[in-house]
Amino acid sequence: MVFFDVFFRTCVSHKVSARAILIFMKYDIYLDNAATTEPSIEVIKKITDSLKKNWGNASSLHKKGFKAFKYIEQVREKLANVVGSDADEILFTSGGTEANNLAIFGVAKTNKIKKRGKNKIITTMVEHASVLEPCRKLQESGFEVIYLKPTKQGTITDKQIIDVLDENTLLVSMMSVNNETGQIFSVEKIKNLINRKSPDVLLHVDAAQSFLKIPINVNEFKCDLLTITAHKAHGPQGIGALFVRKGIKLCPLLFGGEQEKKLRPGTKNIALILGFGEILLNNKVIKENFKRVKKINDFFKEKILQIDGVILNEVENPFPYILNFSVPGLKSEIILNFLSERNIFVSSAAACSKNKRSHVLTAMGLPNEYIDSAIRISFSNQTTFEEIKEFLYELEIAVKNLKDLKTAVK
Amino acid sequence: MVFFDVFFRTCVSHKVSARAILIFMKYDIYLDNAATTEPSIEVIKKITDSLKKNWGNASSLHKKGFKAFKYIEQVREKLANVVGSDADEILFTSGGTEANNLAIFGVAKTNKIKKRGKNKIITTMVEHASVLEPCRKLQESGFEVIYLKPTKQGTITDKQIIDVLDENTLLVSMMSVNNETGQIFSVEKIKNLINRKSPDVLLHVDAAQSFLKIPINVNEFKCDLLTITAHKAHGPQGIGALFVRKGIKLCPLLFGGEQEKKLRPGTKNIALILGFGEILLNNKVIKENFKRVKKINDFFKEKILQIDGVILNEVENPFPYILNFSVPGLKSEIILNFLSERNIFVSSAAACSKNKRSHVLTAMGLPNEYIDSAIRISFSNQTTFEEIKEFLYELEIAVKNLKDLKTAVK
Repeated sequence: MVFFDVFFRTCVSHKVSARAILIFMKYDIYLDNAATTEPSIEVIKKITDSLKKNWGNASSLHKKGFKAFKYIEQVREKLANVVGSDADEILFTSGGTEANNLAIFGVAKTNKIKKRGKNKIITTMVEHASVLEPCRKLQESGFEVIYLKPTKQGTITDKQIIDVLDENTLLVSMMSVNNETGQIFSVEKIKNLINRKSPDVLLHVDAAQSFLKIPINVNEFKCDLLTITAHKAHGPQGIGALFVRKGIKLCPLLFGGEQEKKLRPGTKNIALILGFGEILLNNKVIKENFKRVKKINDFFKEKILQIDGVILNEVENPFPYILNFSVPGLKSEIILNFLSERNIFVSSAAACSKNKRSHVLTAMGLPNEYIDSAIRISFSNQTTFEEIKEFLYELEIAVKNLKDLKTAVK
Repeated sequence: MVFFDVFFRTCVSHKVSARAILIFMKYDIYLDNAATTEPSIEVIKKITDSLKKNWGNASSLHKKGFKAFKYIEQVREKLANVVGSDADEILFTSGGTEANNLAIFGVAKTNKIKKRGKNKIITTMVEHASVLEPCRKLQESGFEVIYLKPTKQGTITDKQIIDVLDENTLLVSMMSVNNETGQIFSVEKIKNLINRKSPDVLLHVDAAQSFLKIPINVNEFKCDLLTITAHKAHGPQGIGALFVRKGIKLCPLLFGGEQEKKLRPGTKNIALILGFGEILLNNKVIKENFKRVKKINDFFKEKILQIDGVILNEVENPFPYILNFSVPGLKSEIILNFLSERNIFVSSAAACSKNKRSHVLTAMGLPNEYIDSAIRISFSNQTTFEEIKEFLYELEIAVKNLKDLKTAVK
């Protein structure tokens, strides 16, 4: 991407239209990094190397197995260092969805087995489907689930949480950053609220979006469970992790071999785990990346508001990597298609809930015409100003052409 | 491997000790292919390419997402062709363990929801842990589970199955090939037995070991559910599939997005799915590979019996890719270590149940001294005669030295 930045600058200095070259080269502008990210060169290299050389079954009792085991444990150790836990508090899973399911069902089932009688779960209306759906399932089986409604600015107040916490509460599950609006939730405050009212309530934090983009530390979050995934931070798809604080008992969802302390059986996927390990160094450049993306974001916000008919769906505590806007009167899908045809990739809502109205914006109480025309832009630390300029150029055309077309049809 | 075969022949013709060269080159002799296999060159290339170029989220509503979706559906179609199903009867999972769990819990939970009242499951004592453990879990929650005991030759008779089938039976779950002994079970006969006694009993077949090694066809097996995994057949770890016959209702284990018909949510792992697709061509050379491995197996059996103190743990209907023998008096681990130090990799039992006595050989009623000294050899279609010769050479030394050592210590 740095190459392209230099390239564009050269183009501009030679009065060549960057856009013409972009289209000619079929160069993609990928602004859907909250859905998934491009795996880094280091990740690809590591996975390829592992597939070639280190593909042993980590449970095998021979050198090839021991080596696989050792390499996997090294990644576990590295990951533990990044989130501030012990290595044996980290379980590898097949991704964020499985980690969220394991956290929520795992706690709920253990509680049922123990017959502790607690059956209340607190979460928010704006969680990812892999938190909301397990909660709904538990509701069907008799749990009381409180879905906190965010304010219009996408936030949840301390009072809202305090009001519903009681001795019947088993778990609070809350995301660190919302995947559609970019609202950063102050999860670090929740355990304090919990401690004030009912100290043995467990806290699960879904950090799928924020991992390696803001500092994620289980001691600062004071959480008991933490969901992590690799593919939103330039790691491979199909690998994630769940932090489970020492002493927390979980019921597994899958049964079989004794891998991952019997909490996640199945042959350990060494290639993906080693690939995952390669993104962890980015923990050291979180601040720099944050600043860089913040500048991109500021620039974007300033410029997009100059396009007639565009409204920013802003949140109280924004995460610079994610941004949401609407073009009331134009359906999201139409803009998405227009841009996609020009190799510009953005999203209407979470990729996991395609063709549905955003439950996040609905919960925030946004007007329907804002929700139906919402576009999510999600940056990566590789996004360039030139890409943003190009995006804005095409968006302006899109908005104008599509509105003209609509008027003509009427 | 072919290269090495030629290389060895050249060495032999020049009177160079192949073994000396092997050790010098630290060349591995990998005979633990039932635990996991070396990914093929085509698989590695495809995964690397996908990580570089096709890493879109298949749920994204733009060209990058559509492309990912299309490529994944192409693999689903290919896989369906291989097993004789429709594409929409195939679900991708994170591997065999998850597929087995989804099949068994999925059927059991649906049955409970429907309150059909059926609560009997029939399986065998020699299944993989990812079948046995879910069954045990269901037993705890009130299901009756019948674990059929195999004969000394590792087989289950028709009569055994007929005797336990009744109208209370919900599911029969049985493997196609045993992972420790290589017994091939005649799963194609089971549905006929079922139809005679209680036609609506479902049949689940775990084909993790046999997939792409013997023909696996859901119409010949007449099964309702079929477990497949990629990494036992030179595909990547972390990807498998479950065939679910049209009309069979399953309860998912994980909840979240709408991927895989809501039966397996989570971002689809395009790189691994495309890698999986690359092994499917091997379906066309099953017979040739089978014949080749059969020759290797015959040669192995003939030669190993010439080693003093070795006993073959033979089964009635052997799968040439897997073979089990014992050296009564010598613990498996000791032989394993001795060979591992010489870069020869074999196994004592399933990799998933390390450090435990084989439940398979125990169920077959083998004497303890056979079980404690059991070694599993598992070939691939890449295994060469030279590797087998080298293995046998080292095994003979191992048996002699270790026995001498034992006598000396006494």
